[in-house]
Amino acid sequence: MELALAQARLAAAGGEVPVGAIITDGAGQVLAAAHNSVEAMRDPTAHAEFLALAAARAARGEKYLADCTLTVTLEPCVFCAGAIAALRLRRVVFGAYDPKTGGVEHGPRVFAHATTHHKPELIGGVREGECAALLKDFFAGFRHA
Amino acid sequence: MELALAQARLAAAGGEVPVGAIITDGAGQVLAAAHNSVEAMRDPTAHAEFLALAAARAARGEKYLADCTLTVTLEPCVFCAGAIAALRLRRVVFGAYDPKTGGVEHGPRVFAHATTHHKPELIGGVREGECAALLKDFFAGFRHA
Repeated sequence: MELALAQARLAAAGGEVPVGAIITDGAGQVLAAAHNSVEAMRDPTAHAEFLALAAARAARGEKYLADCTLTVTLEPCVFCAGAIAALRLRRVVFGAYDPKTGGVEHGPRVFAHATTHHKPELIGGVREGECAALLKDFFAGFRHA
Repeated sequence: MELALAQARLAAAGGEVPVGAIITDGAGQVLAAAHNSVEAMRDPTAHAEFLALAAARAARGEKYLADCTLTVTLEPCVFCAGAIAALRLRRVVFGAYDPKTGGVEHGPRVFAHATTHHKPELIGGVREGECAALLKDFFAGFRHA
Protein backbone atom coordinates (compact mmCIF):
# COMPACT_ATOMS: atom_id res chain seq x y z
CA MET A 1 0.00 0.00 0.00
CA GLU A 2 2.98 2.32 0.52
CA LEU A 3 3.67 2.30 -3.23
CA ALA A 4 0.00 2.83 -4.04
CA LEU A 5 -0.10 5.81 -1.65
CA ALA A 6 3.00 7.23 -3.38
CA GLN A 7 1.16 6.94 -6.71
CA ALA A 8 -1.88 8.68 -5.20
CA ARG A 9 0.35 11.56 -4.05
CA LEU A 10 1.74 11.84 -7.59
CA ALA A 11 -1.83 12.11 -8.86
CA ALA A 12 -2.62 14.91 -6.41
CA ALA A 13 0.55 16.78 -7.39
CA GLY A 14 -0.70 16.67 -11.00
CA GLY A 15 -4.17 17.95 -10.11
CA GLU A 16 -5.80 14.53 -10.34
CA VAL A 17 -8.09 12.99 -7.73
CA PRO A 18 -5.51 11.12 -5.62
CA VAL A 19 -5.93 7.42 -6.24
CA GLY A 20 -2.96 5.14 -6.80
CA ALA A 21 -2.65 1.46 -7.66
CA ILE A 22 -0.02 -1.23 -8.04
CA ILE A 23 -0.07 -4.79 -9.34
CA THR A 24 2.16 -7.43 -7.75
CA ASP A 25 2.63 -10.97 -9.02
CA GLY A 26 2.49 -14.18 -7.04
CA ALA A 27 6.07 -13.68 -5.87
CA GLY A 28 5.33 -10.14 -4.64
CA GLN A 29 7.20 -8.44 -7.48
CA VAL A 30 5.69 -5.16 -8.71
CA LEU A 31 4.46 -5.54 -12.30
CA ALA A 32 2.88 -2.11 -12.70
CA ALA A 33 2.13 1.12 -10.86
CA ALA A 34 -0.27 3.82 -11.96
CA HIS A 35 -2.28 6.74 -10.70
CA ASN A 36 -5.57 8.27 -11.69
CA SER A 37 -4.99 10.18 -14.96
CA VAL A 38 -8.53 11.20 -15.96
CA GLU A 39 -7.62 14.87 -16.44
CA ALA A 40 -4.22 14.36 -18.09
CA MET A 41 -5.60 11.81 -20.55
CA ARG A 42 -9.00 13.49 -20.83
CA ASP A 43 -10.41 10.00 -20.36
CA PRO A 44 -12.97 9.27 -17.62
CA THR A 45 -11.93 5.60 -17.72
CA ALA A 46 -8.24 6.36 -17.01
CA HIS A 47 -8.58 5.16 -13.43
CA ALA A 48 -5.48 4.08 -11.51
CA GLU A 49 -6.68 0.47 -11.29
CA PHE A 50 -7.50 0.10 -14.97
CA LEU A 51 -4.21 1.69 -16.08
CA ALA A 52 -2.23 -0.56 -13.73
CA LEU A 53 -4.14 -3.66 -14.88
CA ALA A 54 -3.57 -2.82 -18.56
CA ALA A 55 0.13 -2.14 -17.97
CA ALA A 56 0.62 -5.38 -16.02
CA ARG A 57 -1.19 -7.41 -18.68
CA ALA A 58 0.93 -5.81 -21.41
CA ALA A 59 4.14 -6.38 -19.41
CA ARG A 60 3.27 -10.02 -18.93
CA GLY A 61 1.97 -10.60 -22.44
CA GLU A 62 -0.63 -12.92 -20.97
CA LYS A 63 -4.39 -12.80 -21.12
CA TYR A 64 -5.02 -13.18 -17.39
CA LEU A 65 -3.38 -12.01 -14.18
CA ALA A 66 -4.52 -14.99 -12.15
CA ASP A 67 -1.65 -14.96 -9.63
CA CYS A 68 -1.71 -11.19 -9.15
CA THR A 69 -2.82 -8.77 -6.45
CA LEU A 70 -4.16 -5.27 -7.12
CA THR A 71 -3.46 -2.86 -4.27
CA VAL A 72 -5.34 0.44 -4.61
CA THR A 73 -5.95 3.35 -2.26
CA LEU A 74 -9.72 3.51 -2.95
CA GLU A 75 -12.48 0.93 -3.34
CA PRO A 76 -12.71 0.19 -7.08
CA CYS A 77 -15.67 1.47 -9.10
CA VAL A 78 -17.93 -0.80 -11.16
CA PHE A 79 -15.82 -0.34 -14.32
CA CYS A 80 -12.57 -1.33 -12.58
CA ALA A 81 -14.30 -4.18 -10.73
CA GLY A 82 -15.43 -5.48 -14.12
CA ALA A 83 -11.85 -5.36 -15.40
CA ILE A 84 -10.63 -7.16 -12.24
CA ALA A 85 -13.15 -9.94 -12.89
CA ALA A 86 -12.28 -10.16 -16.60
CA LEU A 87 -8.55 -10.44 -15.83
CA ARG A 88 -9.21 -12.98 -13.06
CA LEU A 89 -7.08 -11.36 -10.37
CA ARG A 90 -6.31 -13.41 -7.31
CA ARG A 91 -6.69 -10.65 -4.74
CA VAL A 92 -7.79 -7.03 -4.38
CA VAL A 93 -6.52 -4.95 -1.45
CA PHE A 94 -7.99 -1.49 -1.10
CA GLY A 95 -7.68 1.41 1.33
CA ALA A 96 -10.61 3.78 1.69
CA TYR A 97 -14.20 2.64 1.23
CA ASP A 98 -16.17 4.63 -1.35
CA PRO A 99 -19.88 4.86 -0.56
CA LYS A 100 -20.39 7.35 -3.40
CA THR A 101 -19.01 5.51 -6.42
CA GLY A 102 -17.59 2.23 -5.11
CA GLY A 103 -18.73 -0.88 -6.95
CA VAL A 104 -17.34 -3.60 -4.68
CA GLU A 105 -18.82 -2.99 -1.22
CA HIS A 106 -21.38 -0.44 -2.43
CA GLY A 107 -23.87 0.07 -5.26
CA PRO A 108 -23.68 -2.72 -7.85
CA ARG A 109 -21.43 -4.88 -5.57
CA VAL A 110 -19.97 -6.52 -8.63
CA PHE A 111 -18.54 -9.60 -6.91
CA ALA A 112 -21.76 -10.38 -5.03
CA HIS A 113 -23.56 -11.69 -8.15
CA ALA A 114 -23.60 -15.19 -9.62
CA THR A 115 -23.16 -13.65 -13.07
CA THR A 116 -19.74 -12.35 -12.04
CA HIS A 117 -17.87 -15.53 -12.81
CA HIS A 118 -14.64 -14.58 -11.08
CA LYS A 119 -14.43 -13.35 -7.51
CA PRO A 120 -11.04 -12.30 -6.13
CA GLU A 121 -10.15 -12.36 -2.47
CA LEU A 122 -11.15 -8.91 -1.14
CA ILE A 123 -9.39 -7.05 1.67
CA GLY A 124 -10.72 -3.52 2.31
CA GLY A 125 -9.78 -0.80 4.77
CA VAL A 126 -5.98 -1.23 4.63
CA ARG A 127 -4.38 2.04 5.82
CA GLU A 128 -7.87 3.44 5.32
CA GLY A 129 -7.19 6.65 7.27
CA GLU A 130 -4.19 7.68 5.18
CA CYS A 131 -5.90 6.79 1.89
CA ALA A 132 -9.04 8.71 2.81
CA ALA A 133 -7.08 11.71 4.17
CA LEU A 134 -5.38 12.19 0.79
CA LEU A 135 -8.77 12.41 -0.90
CA LYS A 136 -10.25 14.63 1.81
CA ASP A 137 -7.31 17.07 1.67
CA PHE A 138 -7.48 17.17 -2.13
CA PHE A 139 -11.16 18.11 -2.22
CA ALA A 140 -10.77 20.51 0.73
CA GLY A 141 -8.16 22.34 -1.37
CA PHE A 142 -10.73 22.87 -4.09
CA ARG A 143 -13.35 24.16 -1.67
CA HIS A 144 -10.94 26.71 -0.21
CA ALA A 145 -9.55 27.85 -3.55
CA MET B 1 -27.97 -2.27 -35.62
CA GLU B 2 -27.17 -3.39 -39.18
CA LEU B 3 -23.64 -2.01 -38.83
CA ALA B 4 -23.24 -3.57 -35.40
CA LEU B 5 -24.37 -6.95 -36.81
CA ALA B 6 -21.81 -6.58 -39.62
CA GLN B 7 -19.13 -6.01 -36.99
CA ALA B 8 -20.30 -9.09 -35.09
CA ARG B 9 -20.00 -11.17 -38.27
CA LEU B 10 -16.44 -9.87 -38.72
CA ALA B 11 -15.68 -11.03 -35.17
CA ALA B 12 -17.04 -14.51 -35.90
CA ALA B 13 -15.00 -14.72 -39.10
CA GLY B 14 -11.90 -14.03 -36.99
CA GLY B 15 -12.74 -16.68 -34.41
CA GLU B 16 -14.01 -14.18 -31.85
CA VAL B 17 -17.30 -14.41 -29.96
CA PRO B 18 -19.55 -12.43 -32.34
CA VAL B 19 -20.38 -9.13 -30.71
CA GLY B 20 -20.27 -5.87 -32.64
CA ALA B 21 -20.78 -2.25 -31.63
CA ILE B 22 -21.03 1.19 -33.17
CA ILE B 23 -21.14 4.70 -31.74
CA THR B 24 -23.22 7.37 -33.41
CA ASP B 25 -23.29 11.05 -32.52
CA GLY B 26 -26.29 13.27 -31.95
CA ALA B 27 -26.69 13.77 -35.72
CA GLY B 28 -26.64 10.02 -36.37
CA GLN B 29 -23.13 10.02 -37.85
CA VAL B 30 -21.02 6.94 -37.09
CA LEU B 31 -18.04 7.89 -34.93
CA ALA B 32 -16.65 4.40 -34.37
CA ALA B 33 -17.28 0.73 -35.11
CA ALA B 34 -15.63 -2.23 -33.40
CA HIS B 35 -16.01 -5.91 -32.72
CA ASN B 36 -15.01 -8.16 -29.89
CA SER B 37 -11.22 -8.68 -30.12
CA VAL B 38 -10.44 -10.58 -26.92
CA GLU B 39 -8.53 -13.35 -28.70
CA ALA B 40 -6.71 -11.19 -31.25
CA MET B 41 -5.57 -8.71 -28.60
CA ARG B 42 -5.19 -11.35 -25.89
CA ASP B 43 -7.09 -8.90 -23.71
CA PRO B 44 -10.24 -9.99 -21.84
CA THR B 45 -11.34 -6.34 -21.69
CA ALA B 46 -11.19 -5.88 -25.49
CA HIS B 47 -14.98 -5.98 -25.75
CA ALA B 48 -16.70 -4.48 -28.79
CA GLU B 49 -18.38 -1.79 -26.69
CA PHE B 50 -15.24 -0.66 -24.87
CA LEU B 51 -13.16 -0.55 -28.08
CA ALA B 52 -15.87 1.46 -29.85
CA LEU B 53 -16.22 3.86 -26.89
CA ALA B 54 -12.45 4.39 -26.70
CA ALA B 55 -12.21 4.97 -30.47
CA ALA B 56 -15.11 7.44 -30.47
CA ARG B 57 -13.66 9.35 -27.52
CA ALA B 58 -10.27 9.51 -29.25
CA ALA B 59 -11.86 10.59 -32.56
CA ARG B 60 -13.75 13.35 -30.79
CA GLY B 61 -10.88 14.44 -28.54
CA GLU B 62 -13.46 15.11 -25.85
CA LYS B 63 -13.83 13.68 -22.38
CA TYR B 64 -17.48 12.68 -22.64
CA LEU B 65 -19.79 11.32 -25.33
CA ALA B 66 -22.90 12.94 -23.93
CA ASP B 67 -24.80 13.21 -27.23
CA CYS B 68 -23.88 9.71 -28.41
CA THR B 69 -25.64 6.38 -28.79
CA LEU B 70 -23.94 3.00 -28.41
CA THR B 71 -25.58 0.27 -30.49
CA VAL B 72 -24.34 -3.22 -29.64
CA THR B 73 -25.54 -6.71 -30.53
CA LEU B 74 -25.38 -8.02 -26.93
CA GLU B 75 -26.36 -6.63 -23.54
CA PRO B 76 -23.22 -4.96 -22.14
CA CYS B 77 -21.31 -6.57 -19.27
CA VAL B 78 -20.56 -4.79 -16.01
CA PHE B 79 -17.20 -3.50 -17.25
CA CYS B 80 -18.69 -1.96 -20.40
CA ALA B 81 -21.66 -0.60 -18.46
CA GLY B 82 -19.18 1.14 -16.15
CA ALA B 83 -17.45 2.70 -19.17
CA ILE B 84 -20.83 3.81 -20.58
CA ALA B 85 -21.62 5.55 -17.27
CA ALA B 86 -18.16 7.14 -17.07
CA LEU B 87 -18.43 8.52 -20.60
CA ARG B 88 -22.00 9.72 -19.96
CA LEU B 89 -23.58 8.27 -23.09
CA ARG B 90 -27.03 9.48 -23.99
CA ARG B 91 -28.45 6.14 -25.12
CA VAL B 92 -27.62 2.43 -25.26
CA VAL B 93 -29.38 0.19 -27.79
CA PHE B 94 -28.65 -3.52 -27.54
CA GLY B 95 -29.78 -6.69 -29.30
CA ALA B 96 -29.68 -9.95 -27.37
CA TYR B 97 -30.19 -10.10 -23.63
CA ASP B 98 -27.37 -11.82 -21.74
CA PRO B 99 -28.54 -13.61 -18.59
CA LYS B 100 -25.07 -15.15 -18.10
CA THR B 101 -22.77 -12.14 -18.07
CA GLY B 102 -24.96 -9.11 -18.75
CA GLY B 103 -24.58 -6.22 -16.32
CA VAL B 104 -27.46 -3.98 -17.39
CA GLU B 105 -30.64 -6.08 -17.10
CA HIS B 106 -28.96 -8.91 -15.18
CA GLY B 107 -26.54 -9.43 -12.30
CA PRO B 108 -25.13 -6.15 -10.98
CA ARG B 109 -27.69 -4.07 -13.01
CA VAL B 110 -25.25 -1.19 -13.09
CA PHE B 111 -27.75 1.55 -13.95
CA ALA B 112 -30.23 0.52 -11.24
CA HIS B 113 -28.10 1.92 -8.40
CA ALA B 114 -28.03 5.44 -6.96
CA THR B 115 -24.22 5.25 -6.92
CA THR B 116 -24.20 5.04 -10.72
CA HIS B 117 -24.39 8.76 -11.31
CA HIS B 118 -25.18 8.56 -15.00
CA LYS B 119 -27.99 6.53 -16.49
CA PRO B 120 -28.40 6.42 -20.27
CA GLU B 121 -31.67 5.71 -22.02
CA LEU B 122 -31.76 1.91 -22.46
CA ILE B 123 -33.42 0.08 -25.34
CA GLY B 124 -32.93 -3.71 -25.31
CA GLY B 125 -34.06 -6.50 -27.62
CA VAL B 126 -33.54 -4.70 -30.95
CA ARG B 127 -33.22 -7.37 -33.68
CA GLU B 128 -32.75 -9.71 -30.76
CA GLY B 129 -33.28 -12.87 -32.81
CA GLU B 130 -30.55 -12.10 -35.34
CA CYS B 131 -28.10 -10.95 -32.66
CA ALA B 132 -28.69 -14.07 -30.56
CA ALA B 133 -28.56 -16.41 -33.58
CA LEU B 134 -25.05 -15.22 -34.42
CA LEU B 135 -23.89 -16.16 -30.91
CA LYS B 136 -25.78 -19.45 -30.89
CA ASP B 137 -24.35 -20.49 -34.27
CA PHE B 138 -20.84 -19.52 -33.17
CA PHE B 139 -20.93 -21.66 -30.02
CA ALA B 140 -22.72 -24.51 -31.83
CA GLY B 141 -19.76 -24.57 -34.23
CA PHE B 142 -17.41 -25.15 -31.30
CA ARG B 143 -19.55 -27.94 -29.86
CA HIS B 144 -19.60 -29.77 -33.18
CA ALA B 145 -15.91 -29.26 -33.92
